[in-house]
Amino acid sequence: MMQVAIVMGSVSDWPTMQASAAILTELQIPFIKRVISAHRMPATLQQFAQQAVAQQIDVIIAGAGGAAHLPGMLAANTVRPVIGVPIESHALHGMDSLLSIVQMPAGVPVATMAIGVAGAKNAALQAASILALQDAGLQQRLVAYRAAQTQQASESEAQLD
Amino acid sequence: MMQVAIVMGSVSDWPTMQASAAILTELQIPFIKRVISAHRMPATLQQFAQQAVAQQIDVIIAGAGGAAHLPGMLAANTVRPVIGVPIESHALHGMDSLLSIVQMPAGVPVATMAIGVAGAKNAALQAASILALQDAGLQQRLVAYRAAQTQQASESEAQLD
Amino acid sequence: MMQVAIVMGSVSDWPTMQASAAILTELQIPFIKRVISAHRMPATLQQFAQQAVAQQIDVIIAGAGGAAHLPGMLAANTVRPVIGVPIESHALHGMDSLLSIVQMPAGVPVATMAIGVAGAKNAALQAASILALQDAGLQQRLVAYRAAQTQQASESEAQLD
Amino acid sequence: MMQVAIVMGSVSDWPTMQASAAILTELQIPFIKRVISAHRMPATLQQFAQQAVAQQIDVIIAGAGGAAHLPGMLAANTVRPVIGVPIESHALHGMDSLLSIVQMPAGVPVATMAIGVAGAKNAALQAASILALQDAGLQQRLVAYRAAQTQQASESEAQLD
Amino acid sequence: MMQVAIVMGSVSDWPTMQASAAILTELQIPFIKRVISAHRMPATLQQFAQQAVAQQIDVIIAGAGGAAHLPGMLAANTVRPVIGVPIESHALHGMDSLLSIVQMPAGVPVATMAIGVAGAKNAALQAASILALQDAGLQQRLVAYRAAQTQQASESEAQLD
Amino acid sequence: MMQVAIVMGSVSDWPTMQASAAILTELQIPFIKRVISAHRMPATLQQFAQQAVAQQIDVIIAGAGGAAHLPGMLAANTVRPVIGVPIESHALHGMDSLLSIVQMPAGVPVATMAIGVAGAKNAALQAASILALQDAGLQQRLVAYRAAQTQQASESEAQLD
Amino acid sequence: MMQVAIVMGSVSDWPTMQASAAILTELQIPFIKRVISAHRMPATLQQFAQQAVAQQIDVIIAGAGGAAHLPGMLAANTVRPVIGVPIESHALHGMDSLLSIVQMPAGVPVATMAIGVAGAKNAALQAASILALQDAGLQQRLVAYRAAQTQQASESEAQLD
Amino acid sequence: MMQVAIVMGSVSDWPTMQASAAILTELQIPFIKRVISAHRMPATLQQFAQQAVAQQIDVIIAGAGGAAHLPGMLAANTVRPVIGVPIESHALHGMDSLLSIVQMPAGVPVATMAIGVAGAKNAALQAASILALQDAGLQQRLVAYRAAQTQQASESEAQLD
Repeated sequence: MMQVAIVMGSVSDWPTMQASAAILTELQIPFIKRVISAHRMPATLQQFAQQAVAQQIDVIIAGAGGAAHLPGMLAANTVRPVIGVPIESHALHGMDSLLSIVQMPAGVPVATMAIGVAGAKNAALQAASILALQDAGLQQRLVAYRAAQTQQASESEAQLD
Repeated sequence: MMQVAIVMGSVSDWPTMQASAAILTELQIPFIKRVISAHRMPATLQQFAQQAVAQQIDVIIAGAGGAAHLPGMLAANTVRPVIGVPIESHALHGMDSLLSIVQMPAGVPVATMAIGVAGAKNAALQAASILALQDAGLQQRLVAYRAAQTQQASESEAQLD
Repeated sequence: MMQVAIVMGSVSDWPTMQASAAILTELQIPFIKRVISAHRMPATLQQFAQQAVAQQIDVIIAGAGGAAHLPGMLAANTVRPVIGVPIESHALHGMDSLLSIVQMPAGVPVATMAIGVAGAKNAALQAASILALQDAGLQQRLVAYRAAQTQQASESEAQLD
Repeated sequence: MMQVAIVMGSVSDWPTMQASAAILTELQIPFIKRVISAHRMPATLQQFAQQAVAQQIDVIIAGAGGAAHLPGMLAANTVRPVIGVPIESHALHGMDSLLSIVQMPAGVPVATMAIGVAGAKNAALQAASILALQDAGLQQRLVAYRAAQTQQASESEAQLD
Repeated sequence: MMQVAIVMGSVSDWPTMQASAAILTELQIPFIKRVISAHRMPATLQQFAQQAVAQQIDVIIAGAGGAAHLPGMLAANTVRPVIGVPIESHALHGMDSLLSIVQMPAGVPVATMAIGVAGAKNAALQAASILALQDAGLQQRLVAYRAAQTQQASESEAQLD
Repeated sequence: MMQVAIVMGSVSDWPTMQASAAILTELQIPFIKRVISAHRMPATLQQFAQQAVAQQIDVIIAGAGGAAHLPGMLAANTVRPVIGVPIESHALHGMDSLLSIVQMPAGVPVATMAIGVAGAKNAALQAASILALQDAGLQQRLVAYRAAQTQQASESEAQLD
Repeated sequence: MMQVAIVMGSVSDWPTMQASAAILTELQIPFIKRVISAHRMPATLQQFAQQAVAQQIDVIIAGAGGAAHLPGMLAANTVRPVIGVPIESHALHGMDSLLSIVQMPAGVPVATMAIGVAGAKNAALQAASILALQDAGLQQRLVAYRAAQTQQASESEAQLD
Repeated sequence: MMQVAIVMGSVSDWPTMQASAAILTELQIPFIKRVISAHRMPATLQQFAQQAVAQQIDVIIAGAGGAAHLPGMLAANTVRPVIGVPIESHALHGMDSLLSIVQMPAGVPVATMAIGVAGAKNAALQAASILALQDAGLQQRLVAYRAAQTQQASESEAQLD
């Protein structure tokens, strides 16, 4: 069965990353969620990523902040697509998280999203677009989701007093 | 047949984006390449993206620089996964390209790679990891590619003095 | 009849963009206001911009945040002057909005204002200075507006305890 | 007769600003060019800007680098539209020029373009779009210019390998 | 009689700039305070700076925010030392103010201080160090002020734990 | 026997990192040098760091660029002191390397040095200062090294023509 | 007896730096704490650093903000390892502190930690890893500390509702 | 006799700082030049600054790059006015130098100039404006210098072909 893993570097990232979970749920995509600190749990990180294929995890969404090594190190240990979400850090507002995730050297890609909640939402939509390539039902649900948000944006104009 | 499109905002982006093409070729992934300027050819952009599904384009790789709107506007017009490559711009060295691509609002994701050639290479590998989900042969070639680069990195140590 | 369009990427931009509306009203410049998300409503964006001349819209003021593609894509679809207002984004405080709007490639200009409310006010004044070239009454009102703000600034010195 | 002024802070800005001159010439828009250093020639600056209306200068294009005060101080002394071009400075690559020009306080707008030559070109196109509001011939030439560049962008695809 | 002028671009800068006033008062340095907006009151700015020598103003302290042109334009109109204080702006936290003040081209210096209140305090101390060159009494008061702050810093250690 | 390991993410980092090697040699500190790419050789990285104590490596110097995960991931796998050297990257000049290394979350420290060659030299001196705590001979050599560089700096004044 | 000194530039840095003190206490490492302002107490700074060896201070942890000269100037006056903690400054959020500390020229290293509390905690852990090289008991306590935090991170997953 | 000291952190700063020397010479202001590395020669720094008053040094111009502590530490040790010149550093182009010099805490001011040669020139002009307060002849020479540069800027317009 097709599956997504939402991994985060700290339980404090959950308020951001649950935005991923909410959209995956809405699109009926099965997922697991994990706390794996790259720096405090490096052995777990390596093991998790290396078993992703065997565990039938098709896409990994990874959120981390500051010197954010989680997405890149997951990608280093699997060929499954890894989507990175830069958590908004305190002092530098996520610029450190963004550069630590997006500036990967050639050879190991991380699909980086925007800083914070917008990025977490888009990580789920990116996962959906990937999985929809082989799931016609999901493709329909994703098209419908996108159409609904177009409709909502269009209707929001009425709120301009 | 499964296919990738490499789209760039200007023919001057080709020296960067051909790094994507080289890896797609090496991994035997069929692709087309297009020049579509978001600002000079907006009608072509819209038409291209809207027909991506019908044209059996599974993944779009889009490179652009400066106020780089191409990846985001492609993503706005399709549900296919879009991978963005920030071209290194002259004055700001690609920081403008990066922020213009990665900071997408919730609802329309762009999978952003590193600035420049490293990003172009990783865009191809990201596309490969996506397509490999439904192509066991490609999965094998991707695993082999990654193993080879691990091998090369390991052997490069001999070049120290 | 001469007209300005205030366009914003999201209804959440209205608290900023109503500063444009207030000054246009004060200067008696007729205007319409629209919510058009570049990423959620790309077809509407294209249609709106292409019809600007026919709709007798002389100047477009466009506010957007983050990877702000609205002003540039409007400009890509019309030859009417487009004035861009970078909305102050959450994580990066509008630096992403600014670079996404101002760093347009050669060929398609966007007249970029300051980040946030100051920029929204100045967008209206910039529109006024453009329209005043062919409207002597507006020219007089604009000169009077500027004289009044000079007077206010001068008198504010009395507030230094 | 309708006229544009290209003003620059130093003769060393001319390699950038002549890109404005070339496009104005191509579009048959009459213009003058001036070197007025905001810091070395402040009296000239003030006099020039205050006489812009009387001198039938409809649009001012101003290029300056570093702590670039020229565009803002011109705008402070006239109600004519001022278009600012941030010159690419040595140490900070024009980021200082950009912020010094674009971050104008409410009350005095400067229509800011991209850093460097792209900005200089777009300043001319922005001036053209303003002047075309009252000049049908120029409107036609501008539409043709834009169509030609769309055509060129489209044809450039043939240069990919 | 020797004198300092504290000039600010807006009455909203006073909460910062009164830190200059407090130290000048403490050091018994006579001063005036003025609101002169570079962009709203350019004629006043020019007149004020040109008359500084005649008005026996020996040092000008100028605080401004955003595209902060006040210190540089004052310096352009006088040979008296000008000390610039970058006000902390809203979106960019004073980075725009700092670069607009400090990055002056060769020929017209502005002695730039830190962003915000620390800068305003130091502007007064810098003025004091300049004026003390020809005022032995002030020199003594300045030495005493510095000694007292050394003493306070040293004693503050008792507050740990 | 006491030992330092110089580890780098790529053989292309060697021109920078050999500045570490030269100073270690000069101070007679035994060291090994390794190429271990965090992303291409994650298993080697983990194994190497976990065996550092057993291998009698007392200090690890790690240089990496871009999304530089090597120093942090080494530190995650050992309690030995890790000194990080941000390699100057192409597009962002090492700002990405710096933030990726220095902004480590609480719990796993990396002693970060300056970007580039200066950082590589200082990494060796930092290692020396650590090892000198238990090696009186090294302490003497380090004191002599520092005294010599003071002498050289002092004498360099003669080169001012 | 082995000892650490926690030095800070101002008593206002104590809320950050007490995070260092807490961990040193937990690891049973004796330490002193001092307020030494580099700019207000330069003579004390020099004297303190020069006597560090004689005072049996093995490691100095120094926290400072803004133009943070304390860590570098301590390092200039001793060969003992100096660990720098960039305090989060008001306007620039510690980016100024970070660059002022980390960008040391070749010859005098400062082991720089992350901005703010995370950096203060890691400074203590870095000191511990240095001192543990010659203290088997501390080495055991540090290994236990690290194991405990791994355990806590792992267990925190249960908090994901 | 009145005197200026030009101090630099390294002999490699001389190509920048000789621009200060040239203008001081042109304005007939006596000066000495010194190499004093804040980090390699801290004792010399302290001694030099403490003796500035006794040595009849009225103004100190200090150039330094990277984590530039020289201007601030000189200012910490004297009440004479200190003018700081941020040298353009390699990786960060002087942004580190600028922030390390300008962001001084309250109590100890450094009059900061632009990055690089423009700043070095302006440091000399700033020193001249300070010394001219008590030297009518210098005041005349400075006025003449400024008038000449205005004249040159005005005449440079003829170079626009």
